[in-house]
Amino acid sequence: MRNFNRRQFLNMLATVGGSSLAYQASAAMGLISTSSGKRSISLHSAKKGKNKIVILGAGISGLAAAYELERAGYQCIILEASHRAGGRVFTARHGDLIDELGAPSICQFDDDPDLYMNCGAARIPGHHERTLHYCKTFNVPMRIIANSNRLAYLHDSNNFDGKPIRIGEHIADSRGFVAELAQKAIDSSRFDAELSKDDIENLSNFLNVFGDLDEAGNYVGSERSGALGDRMLSKPELRTPPALKDLVNSPLFSRIQRMTELYDWAEPLMTPVGGMDKIVDGFLNNIATPIHYNSQVSAIKLHESGVHIAYSQKGEMKTIDADYCFNCIPAHFMNGIVNNFSTEYKQALNTLKRGKLFKIGFQMKERFWEKENIYGGISYTNLPIRQVWYPSSGIFSNKGIMLGAYVWEEKQYDYFARLTPQKRLEVAAAMGDQIHPNYSSYIETGISIPWSRMNHMMGCGSTMSTEDRKRYFTRLQKPEGRHFMMGDQISYHPGWQEGALAAMETSLAHFSELVEA
Amino acid sequence: MRNFNRRQFLNMLATVGGSSLAYQASAAMGLISTSSGKRSISLHSAKKGKNKIVILGAGISGLAAAYELERAGYQCIILEASHRAGGRVFTARHGDLIDELGAPSICQFDDDPDLYMNCGAARIPGHHERTLHYCKTFNVPMRIIANSNRLAYLHDSNNFDGKPIRIGEHIADSRGFVAELAQKAIDSSRFDAELSKDDIENLSNFLNVFGDLDEAGNYVGSERSGALGDRMLSKPELRTPPALKDLVNSPLFSRIQRMTELYDWAEPLMTPVGGMDKIVDGFLNNIATPIHYNSQVSAIKLHESGVHIAYSQKGEMKTIDADYCFNCIPAHFMNGIVNNFSTEYKQALNTLKRGKLFKIGFQMKERFWEKENIYGGISYTNLPIRQVWYPSSGIFSNKGIMLGAYVWEEKQYDYFARLTPQKRLEVAAAMGDQIHPNYSSYIETGISIPWSRMNHMMGCGSTMSTEDRKRYFTRLQKPEGRHFMMGDQISYHPGWQEGALAAMETSLAHFSELVEA
Repeated sequence: MRNFNRRQFLNMLATVGGSSLAYQASAAMGLISTSSGKRSISLHSAKKGKNKIVILGAGISGLAAAYELERAGYQCIILEASHRAGGRVFTARHGDLIDELGAPSICQFDDDPDLYMNCGAARIPGHHERTLHYCKTFNVPMRIIANSNRLAYLHDSNNFDGKPIRIGEHIADSRGFVAELAQKAIDSSRFDAELSKDDIENLSNFLNVFGDLDEAGNYVGSERSGALGDRMLSKPELRTPPALKDLVNSPLFSRIQRMTELYDWAEPLMTPVGGMDKIVDGFLNNIATPIHYNSQVSAIKLHESGVHIAYSQKGEMKTIDADYCFNCIPAHFMNGIVNNFSTEYKQALNTLKRGKLFKIGFQMKERFWEKENIYGGISYTNLPIRQVWYPSSGIFSNKGIMLGAYVWEEKQYDYFARLTPQKRLEVAAAMGDQIHPNYSSYIETGISIPWSRMNHMMGCGSTMSTEDRKRYFTRLQKPEGRHFMMGDQISYHPGWQEGALAAMETSLAHFSELVEA
Repeated sequence: MRNFNRRQFLNMLATVGGSSLAYQASAAMGLISTSSGKRSISLHSAKKGKNKIVILGAGISGLAAAYELERAGYQCIILEASHRAGGRVFTARHGDLIDELGAPSICQFDDDPDLYMNCGAARIPGHHERTLHYCKTFNVPMRIIANSNRLAYLHDSNNFDGKPIRIGEHIADSRGFVAELAQKAIDSSRFDAELSKDDIENLSNFLNVFGDLDEAGNYVGSERSGALGDRMLSKPELRTPPALKDLVNSPLFSRIQRMTELYDWAEPLMTPVGGMDKIVDGFLNNIATPIHYNSQVSAIKLHESGVHIAYSQKGEMKTIDADYCFNCIPAHFMNGIVNNFSTEYKQALNTLKRGKLFKIGFQMKERFWEKENIYGGISYTNLPIRQVWYPSSGIFSNKGIMLGAYVWEEKQYDYFARLTPQKRLEVAAAMGDQIHPNYSSYIETGISIPWSRMNHMMGCGSTMSTEDRKRYFTRLQKPEGRHFMMGDQISYHPGWQEGALAAMETSLAHFSELVEA
C-alpha cells in the first residue's frame, strides 16, 4: 500500500468490487470499528474553514449523522420539513398531531405513558447492531417483545370454517405432515448417495422429533399444538389434525410459516420501554446541532467548494451555505426540488419508489385478548386489515393499544387510504369482530396512519426494481460532489432503522475519503 | 338431577369417568368458574365448628389453598419445614441462604434488585391460566422473556468442528432439507389419494415457503439463517448449508428442534418483573393465615372428625388438631412421617419419585453476550452443563446473572451433585469457555442448586412410571379421609406452578364435596 494514499486505495477497491467492498474496506481501515461487537465511528477531526455541514431531514440517519459529525468537531445544522424529528420513527400518544395530508387530527389516546402506538418502526432484532449501539450509547431502556405468538390466531374467512385457529396448531400440524412426507422420501432422494445406513437412521430420528411423529413415522396429531382436556390433570388427548390439503389451502400459510423464520424477525425482538421514539429522544438529548423545523427545502445547488440550500420556513424563504450536505429527503421529493445534479444521479434518484404501509391503532378499554391467553404477538387474517398486534407491555393493566391493521399490499392499502379516517376505523373494527367476538365493543378511540398520505413522507420503506437496483443502487450510495444521499432508502434494507444507519455510515465513509483527499 | 344431591352426582361421575371427569363437572357446577378466560374459585362458606384447616407446606399450592380457604371463611394455619415460603419458587439474591444439605452457603450476588436467579420455576406460558390468574389478582408486574433465541448457539463438541453455530442456522437449514425431502415425496405418499392436482400445487408452494426452497424445489441455503456480508448494504450472499447428514448427526437436534415447539414453551413466555418469587410475595401479602416456619411434620393421624398433626419446631415437639389437612409435603418424605393412611394410599404415595434438576447461576461482570447479538434465550451444548441462559432483562446494564448450567439427566446431574459447590462452579466455568471465549474471565461469583440436595426438598418435579400412573394417580388426586395431597406432584404436570395450582383446585373440589355432604 506504499504507493497509494487511502483514498486511492478505496477508489481502486470500489472499481473492483463496488462501493460495498469499499465500504467494508473503510470499516477495516478504521473508520468504523466493530471489534468484539462494539461499534464506533472515528471520523477525522474537522479542519478549520471547511467544517460547516447542512443535514436535510431529522430522521434517524440525519440525527445519527449530526451526532457523529458533531463529535468530530463539525458544525452541523438540520433542516426538517415537518414539525417533529424522527421521521418514520413516530410514536403517537395523547395529544399528538397525526399529520395526514388534508386530514390532520389529534391522537385521543388517554394521557398515559403506557398507551402509545409505534406508527412506523416497531421492532429491533438482536443483530441490528447499529441501532442497538445507539440505544446502548444513549441508555435507552429496552425490553423483549413478542413478535410471534403461538396462541394468537390464524383467521382465514375461506378456510377452517372461517373460524380463527391458534397459530400453534397450524405450525405443529405443518411440521408433522412435512416430516411425514420427508420420511417417505428418504429412499428416493438426491441425498441417497451421501447417506450411510447410520445417517439414514439419524435422519429418521430427526424427522420424528422435527414433526412429533409416531413410531411408524406417521403424523397423527401433536401435543405441541395444545391438547383436548386439562393437561394439568390428565394425559393430554391429541387434537385431530385437519387434512393436509386444508392446511396448505389457506394462503395465510405463507405468513404463518415465515412468521418466526425471517432473519429480521429472529426472536427475541426488542423495543425501547415507553415507545420507539425514545431512540429519537436519545439523539436529541445528545446533540447540540440546531434543528430548524417546518423548513422545507426548495433548492440544492452544488458548487466546487460547497452547497447552497434554499428553503421556506413558515412561508419565509431562507438560504444556507455549507461545505457539505447530507440529504435524507425521500428521493421521490427530489424531482420537486431545484437542483443541479448530474443527469445520471437524477436518473438514479428517480428509480427510488416509495412503498406503502397502513396501520391502525385502537385504544381498547379492556385487555380482552389476555382472557384468550394472548400476551403480545400478532394474529393474521385474510381480511384487508391483514394483522392485529397485541401489546407486549402493560400486561394485566386496564387498557391497551392494539394494532388494528397492518397493511402493505397495494390493493388493501389503497382501499383503506381512500376512506376517511373515521370510516377506516369503523371498517377495521368490523373486521376485528371476525377474529375476536365483541372486538369492536372494546374500542374507545383510534388513529390511522396511511404513510403515503403522511405529510413530508408520502410513503414508507422505498422500493427499487431489480434492474434499477443493479444499475443505479451503488451510484446512490456514492456522493454527488459534496452532497451525500442518506436514509434507509439508500440501504439495501429500507423500512428499518438499521438500514438508515447503514446508509449513514456509508455516507460518512465517503465523506471521510473526501475530506482527507 | 332432581333425585341426586350434588355430591351423589359427582360420585356417580367419578365412578363412570374417573376423578378428572368429576373435577371437570365440579368446574361446570360452579366451584371453579372459567368463563371468558377469568378464573375464580367459589367455595362454600365455612360453617361453624368445622372450619379449622392445617396446610402442610408453604409452596405455591399450599399458599393458594390458604388464600382460597381463607376467603371462604376457614381458619387456616400453615406449617412449613424450611425457613422460607415458596418451595421451588425460589429466587436467590444477595445474602440469601442456599440451603443445601451439608453445604449451606450465602448467595454473594451484588445487592442489586436486577441481579437474581430463579432457581426453580422460571417461565410462564400464556396458557397457564391458573398461574396468571394469581399474578393478575395480586398485581404482580409481568414481562415477556426470551426463552428461545435464534442468535444463541448450538455447541456440539463432536460436530460442526466443535464450534458453536447460531441456532437460527440449524433451524433454517433443517426446514430447508426437510421441505426438500417432502417435495420429493409428494408423488409417493399416503396423501396421494386425498390430494387433487390443485392440492398438490398448494402443497408444493407451501413446502417452498416452509423451507425457503429454490424454484426447482431444492434447498441451497437461506437468508433466514443470516447471510454473508453486510445485508444492510448489499444483496445478502447465502451461507452454504452443511451436509444434511451433519445436520442430523448432532444429538443436540433434539433440543434445538423442540426448543420453540413444546407447548409449555409456546412463546411468548413471561416472568414477574424482579423475580419469580414476586408471586410468592403476592400470596404472602394477601393472606392472613399464619405460617409457622422451621416446622417439620413427624406424624399425621386421621380420625373420623379431623386430623392430628405432630411436628417439631426448632427442636420442640408440638401438635395441632384440625378439621381438615391439605398436604404439600414431597410424597417421598411421607415414608418417614408416622401416619395411619390406608395401605392402598400409602402404596400410591410410594410410587411418586422425585426428578432431578441442577442449576448454576453466575454473576457476570460484563454482559459479553450482548456483544455477540444475544439478548436473552438459551444456548445448548452437549457438555454436561447442557444449557446456558442469558437474562432477558437489564439489557445494556453493566452486569447480569447468567444460568451457567441446566441439568436434569441422571448421569450429568449426579456428576455435578457429587462435587463441592466451589468445584461445580469451576467445572461449569471451564465448559462455558468452550461456548464463549473468555466466559470464565467474566465470572464474579456463583451459586449452584442441586435440587435433590436442597433441604426439605430433596428433589425436583416428581416422576411416576407409566404403570404406576395408570394404577395410582387418580387415587392420589382423591382425598384420604379428611386429608388431601397437593402440590405439582399430584398433577399430571409436575415441575410447573400450573400443575401445583391444578392439584390445589382438584383438592378444593373434593373438599367442597366433603363439606357439603
